[in-house]
Amino acid sequence: MALIVQKYGGTSVSSPERIKNVARRIARWKAQGHRLVVVVSAMAGETNRLLALAREVQNHPHPRELDVMVSTGEQVTIALMSMALMDLGLKARSYTGGQVKILTDSAHTRARIMSIDEERLRADLADDHVVVVAGFQGVDEAGNITTLGRGGSDTTGVALAAALKADECQIYTDVDGVYTTDPRIVPEARRLRTITFEEMLEMASLGSKVLQIRSVEFAGKYKVKLRVLSSFEEEGDGTLITFEEDENMEQAIISGIAFNRDEAKITILGVPDRPGIAYQILGPIGDANMDVDMIVQNVGHDGMTDFSFTVHRNDYQKALEILKPVIEHIKARGVVSGDKIAKVSVVGVGMRSHAGIASAMFRTLAEEGINIEMISTSEIKISVVIDEKYLELAVRMLHKAFALDQQPA
Amino acid sequence: MALIVQKYGGTSVSSPERIKNVARRIARWKAQGHRLVVVVSAMAGETNRLLALAREVQNHPHPRELDVMVSTGEQVTIALMSMALMDLGLKARSYTGGQVKILTDSAHTRARIMSIDEERLRADLADDHVVVVAGFQGVDEAGNITTLGRGGSDTTGVALAAALKADECQIYTDVDGVYTTDPRIVPEARRLRTITFEEMLEMASLGSKVLQIRSVEFAGKYKVKLRVLSSFEEEGDGTLITFEEDENMEQAIISGIAFNRDEAKITILGVPDRPGIAYQILGPIGDANMDVDMIVQNVGHDGMTDFSFTVHRNDYQKALEILKPVIEHIKARGVVSGDKIAKVSVVGVGMRSHAGIASAMFRTLAEEGINIEMISTSEIKISVVIDEKYLELAVRMLHKAFALDQQPA
Repeated sequence: MALIVQKYGGTSVSSPERIKNVARRIARWKAQGHRLVVVVSAMAGETNRLLALAREVQNHPHPRELDVMVSTGEQVTIALMSMALMDLGLKARSYTGGQVKILTDSAHTRARIMSIDEERLRADLADDHVVVVAGFQGVDEAGNITTLGRGGSDTTGVALAAALKADECQIYTDVDGVYTTDPRIVPEARRLRTITFEEMLEMASLGSKVLQIRSVEFAGKYKVKLRVLSSFEEEGDGTLITFEEDENMEQAIISGIAFNRDEAKITILGVPDRPGIAYQILGPIGDANMDVDMIVQNVGHDGMTDFSFTVHRNDYQKALEILKPVIEHIKARGVVSGDKIAKVSVVGVGMRSHAGIASAMFRTLAEEGINIEMISTSEIKISVVIDEKYLELAVRMLHKAFALDQQPA
Repeated sequence: MALIVQKYGGTSVSSPERIKNVARRIARWKAQGHRLVVVVSAMAGETNRLLALAREVQNHPHPRELDVMVSTGEQVTIALMSMALMDLGLKARSYTGGQVKILTDSAHTRARIMSIDEERLRADLADDHVVVVAGFQGVDEAGNITTLGRGGSDTTGVALAAALKADECQIYTDVDGVYTTDPRIVPEARRLRTITFEEMLEMASLGSKVLQIRSVEFAGKYKVKLRVLSSFEEEGDGTLITFEEDENMEQAIISGIAFNRDEAKITILGVPDRPGIAYQILGPIGDANMDVDMIVQNVGHDGMTDFSFTVHRNDYQKALEILKPVIEHIKARGVVSGDKIAKVSVVGVGMRSHAGIASAMFRTLAEEGINIEMISTSEIKISVVIDEKYLELAVRMLHKAFALDQQPA
């Protein structure tokens, strides 16, 4: 008998019928004697419907009022889910973020959770209730309704699990776990039984959309045992995200191949190699609220160097505009750039103790004639930027080279 | 410069375009220097949509969860209305019932307002905000979301006006005021510039659907100046509901003709004329949660009398069932009943000081050959039950007989 927090996303509660299906699944967990807290998102499509309605009234909807509005999406789902559970003979009670209460800062549409008052939930759990909580939302000190931003329901689930010291936080999604890479590109991709938090963080930040990155950070910080499961399949243990490496029974050196096509690269040629030059280039980019991902600067020659970085493709043209006066000011030789690139990364905690991963990766790409344009590494990840057209080929070959299709010994 | 509470119903906020229209109207009031609190309903159709969704999940939706769900309807409107006001350059802020907070009892789906904490609203008003409040909803002591039942937004408006000691509470509806009778039956029906609370209460209870009866009671209790206006027409002062008769400048003896077709009559013949008999008959009816409207019992003969009353047509068959054993038990002679009846009432505070109203009414009906089946009177109202087929004729003739088509001197 455990205390389990389960989170169900928008597609798994998109209709009364699906809500009833989820309720039946919850009832089976309850029948096993577990205490359950269920976090739900808005019904799929509802948040977008509300956003569209808001934009019909105000071009740039006021953030405070937008939160009042979109938070109704989850509020409808918690009521329906509680009804569905009661219809199965269970005791159930719904809570909005404000009712819990989930206290956040006042950054409307992207608030962060500060604390959770779990008192009422504990009382309901002790009284054998399934507690149903609205994901994605909270209230600030002044009682204003806030939302955590897209995907915030995952974070609500993890934060509740942390506050309640739950035995496990289960995130039910469209997929049945975390894979070695995207099965649409590599059919042999294999579901991981476990993955470490650090690996999951890298995978999430590299574009693997299974979990919202903030929820993974949260889980890591509060040592919440997190599991990704399919909301449509009954069988399977999903992927457990562990925070102790020795729990990782698979002992793989590399856990997965991540990739994304969201970036564009900008290289400034002939930059004077002197202190402060990186700040002069990236300062204006940051001031314009653009995120810079990879940054590469090599050893210079003759007092000059080349400075490269990547930005999100949506920011690409704006970044080039911003850099025009900068390039002139610092007297750089020029700029080359492109958005037909892809980033491919191998991720694995094993590379801490295993040499030769980088050279194996580079050899694999070289054998296929794929040129590496940029390289960036962290302790458990090696990322390369390549021509976008080679993306699928690179992922397939790396997956094979690191034998990811085979269960580790 | 006054403090005004305005309430806009579902049809006047049924689309982004209509919400913008209402916002422009509010802006004009604001431009005149008034401080404004705006109460809004759910967009027309939304409450029914949510109810249908709930019933797909649970046949008889749990009242607590139903309130969580349907309260989102007004929550969406307050956000949209605040956005529309800000889009016009006004300062605006929305509040749910819980945020205000509007404290109610815990009778879900039909809660009653206990108190209102108007502190935050006052601060916003002092800071030149238009305050937008969700109608129809509140919270109980434990923080559970409650709703006031259908039409409850009127009550929210009046209760806020009472708490804030507003100069006036304006209820914007589909019609531009209270009429001497239904203009669909009598085209000459005239909008009343004023009507007293007592008259309005009688009109509302007699089926005139302009205002929810509870809101009128509330206004009378807290001496809130209430005005009914059209939400679609710009011109016109609507109808002011006054609580002092001397404010009623029109000095009419009769203010209006009300009617309804919602009732059925039941007469029990040959009832033993002894103490306790009325209770023996109506007790079981009340126990079954049926409302009895008119009750008539005349002087008896030979220890026997006839006992008549009316119930809502929806309760008619059930009432007859319930009475079967009662009639046997009290040894009454039998029962006659029918649901093809209508009730017509003349209402006016003037009849307190003017004799002859009843006889004028009866003469008018007699001249048209309309038989009166039951009569019931109060201090400011005379109601008769007649054959349903004569309803329109009776209303037209009474409207003419009391010269209601003409403005009083």
